Amino acid sequence: MEEILRALSKTLRVFELGESEIKIYSLLQREALTPRQIAKTLGLSERIVREKLKHLLELGLVERTLVNRGWLGYVYYAKAPREALQALFSRLESTLKAIEKEGELKLKG
Amino acid sequence: MEEILRALSKTLRVFELGESEIKIYSLLQREALTPRQIAKTLGLSERIVREKLKHLLELGLVERTLVNRGWLGYVYYAKAPREALQALFSRLESTLKAIEKEGELKLKG
Repeated sequence: MEEILRALSKTLRVFELGESEIKIYSLLQREALTPRQIAKTLGLSERIVREKLKHLLELGLVERTLVNRGWLGYVYYAKAPREALQALFSRLESTLKAIEKEGELKLKG
Repeated sequence: MEEILRALSKTLRVFELGESEIKIYSLLQREALTPRQIAKTLGLSERIVREKLKHLLELGLVERTLVNRGWLGYVYYAKAPREALQALFSRLESTLKAIEKEGELKLKG
């Protein structure tokens, strides 16, 4: 049982968003930006912004596209709220279902 | 959208269990104990144990019963793993459904 509770807590933590991640998502709803531009606008380090973007990408809240503007790099943009919300919840629900099922099997076995 | 993401994160945090909460649950699976007994066994302060027990009660993982053994007080015990798991997941799922629904309404409105 402890193992199941640990797995659940770990999973929930993955889906939690910090205030700066929410701010980045909001900002990207208005315009597509590079990590450097985001960092400047929000007064965060670029390293932190890249970390947060990675998390937002994993959760399906933002997407990126490779552009060539003299330099080659990624520009990030936010997925439309409704689409993003649906993606996030369906991912969360299926992850929870998997833990629950595995948990029930473990408790039976 | 930010409001929805904040509500989601806050809710997920409520369902997260720390290592000491998991230990308390485990301990109570073996025997029913008072907060003081739990504190002694795990080397935690009684105040912390009471906080954690409150959280575990809210999540439906433990229950308590008032006993009179010369002193009057609560004795805590763990719900059976399968029952506890089902209660926890059904609570989590219904809370998430509510946020998702509210979120969708907000995004439509």
